[in-house]
Amino acid sequence: MDKPTILVTNDDGIHAPGIAMLVNAMKAIGNIIVVAPDKPQSGMGHAITLNEPLRLNPVNIFEGIEAYACSGTPVDCVKLAKDKILHHKPDLCVSGINHGSNSSINIIYSGTMSAAVEASIEGIPAVGFSLLDFSLQADFSGAGAYAKIIAEQVLQYGLPNSTLLNVNIPALNLNEIKGIKICRQAVAKWEEEYDERNDPHGRKYFWLTGKFVNQDAGDDTDEWALSNGYVSVVPVQFDMTAHHTIGYFNKTWTIKHHDEISATSKSVNNLG
Amino acid sequence: MDKPTILVTNDDGIHAPGIAMLVNAMKAIGNIIVVAPDKPQSGMGHAITLNEPLRLNPVNIFEGIEAYACSGTPVDCVKLAKDKILHHKPDLCVSGINHGSNSSINIIYSGTMSAAVEASIEGIPAVGFSLLDFSLQADFSGAGAYAKIIAEQVLQYGLPNSTLLNVNIPALNLNEIKGIKICRQAVAKWEEEYDERNDPHGRKYFWLTGKFVNQDAGDDTDEWALSNGYVSVVPVQFDMTAHHTIGYFNKTWTIKHHDEISATSKSVNNLG
Repeated sequence: MDKPTILVTNDDGIHAPGIAMLVNAMKAIGNIIVVAPDKPQSGMGHAITLNEPLRLNPVNIFEGIEAYACSGTPVDCVKLAKDKILHHKPDLCVSGINHGSNSSINIIYSGTMSAAVEASIEGIPAVGFSLLDFSLQADFSGAGAYAKIIAEQVLQYGLPNSTLLNVNIPALNLNEIKGIKICRQAVAKWEEEYDERNDPHGRKYFWLTGKFVNQDAGDDTDEWALSNGYVSVVPVQFDMTAHHTIGYFNKTWTIKHHDEISATSKSVNNLG
Repeated sequence: MDKPTILVTNDDGIHAPGIAMLVNAMKAIGNIIVVAPDKPQSGMGHAITLNEPLRLNPVNIFEGIEAYACSGTPVDCVKLAKDKILHHKPDLCVSGINHGSNSSINIIYSGTMSAAVEASIEGIPAVGFSLLDFSLQADFSGAGAYAKIIAEQVLQYGLPNSTLLNVNIPALNLNEIKGIKICRQAVAKWEEEYDERNDPHGRKYFWLTGKFVNQDAGDDTDEWALSNGYVSVVPVQFDMTAHHTIGYFNKTWTIKHHDEISATSKSVNNLG
């Protein structure tokens, strides 16, 4: 059987150590193509580039591996890779290894995870990997070993329709990591604390800082798994519908029909 | 009773006609604060600004209304508004009225909807509004009337926990719109067709274009409602967990424990 084609991307940029480890981990199991941002794109969420053209430059960073630096966001990388480089769906898309956690609510801000989500929207099995260590000097060896094992599981068993994986790895040595837990995303959020400063001209500016608040005491969450020494694997979907509330709205809302709305809106003089 | 405080934002920028109509529609029902991007931010998804400082400049655009132009993304606007301007949670956050549809999968790319999602993460009732007309000359009067009615329903009944609304309005005259449908998000995606060009120096660049493909024949979707003349109201949640697949992974995956993983990863020479 042919080796599977594996698309590798990230959000820390093509020169980040995390993606080098991910390429290394995937080399043994597939034919690799790398398309990753030419500069750091952390916190870009599911942004796409609509108002500027995009560039794709071949780079020779990973020995013997076809690789391109893209001027756009992580989601742009996946879209361009599929449409302009691969011309077909790869067998797997892996994103990361991110420098820093993408557990719980962080998934929604994460370029790493949004790239994986985009691949999944396209029908490509996808996994995002993140290590709980922000530093450029982080030890990615445990994360690399788990990335390989998890990618192999995904290639072997496939993934349910419209489902991808969010994998976070604790900042521990490989032999300190206890194994894998399948988890749900913890209920958590960031509390902003903008750092307010004045520029040399006396004008205010703000740096985003904040503290992560876990509001979830469950022992089935990614936060629980990570703080107990496990790799957390959260199956992820991208249907944003709150299906369980549709009945509630149909029962509660009083104004739904044209005649009622028309009568109400006539009283609004300034609405045309 | 005091009038409710309503935070207004968008992704087309503070000078877009759509936000002017939204401010107009909200004026009758609450005290308005506007914090919106100083330039267009379409397609920014849930991006936040981590690597640059942010500016907030007071502007006098909407008569008698406190308003700020923010240098960041729509999500930055909501975070800054809460932390640095309001210093408390508003009673409602409305985002839009977007120039163009945010139905079905578009929600995930949309700055308009991501601003509303961010407000909801913060525990603020939130609604994003979009009109199915991209043009700057679009007629927003029907959309404005529906925005007012829906905001009133939300203020009257509240919203279920961690639920916000994605409201799309067909590009019809007010009296042609048939009413409101509570819907689920249609299963759909964009098929990329990058427009490939050469710059004057002979180097390639790419513009993102694509076509929207509705893969969903259901008559309970936002796409169905909109193409049948209704305003679509999709209740939205932001837990990305694919809860229904957790049992599947627990049953299927063969490698989950440390010893098995350790044995496997030892064979990977270049990891570690």
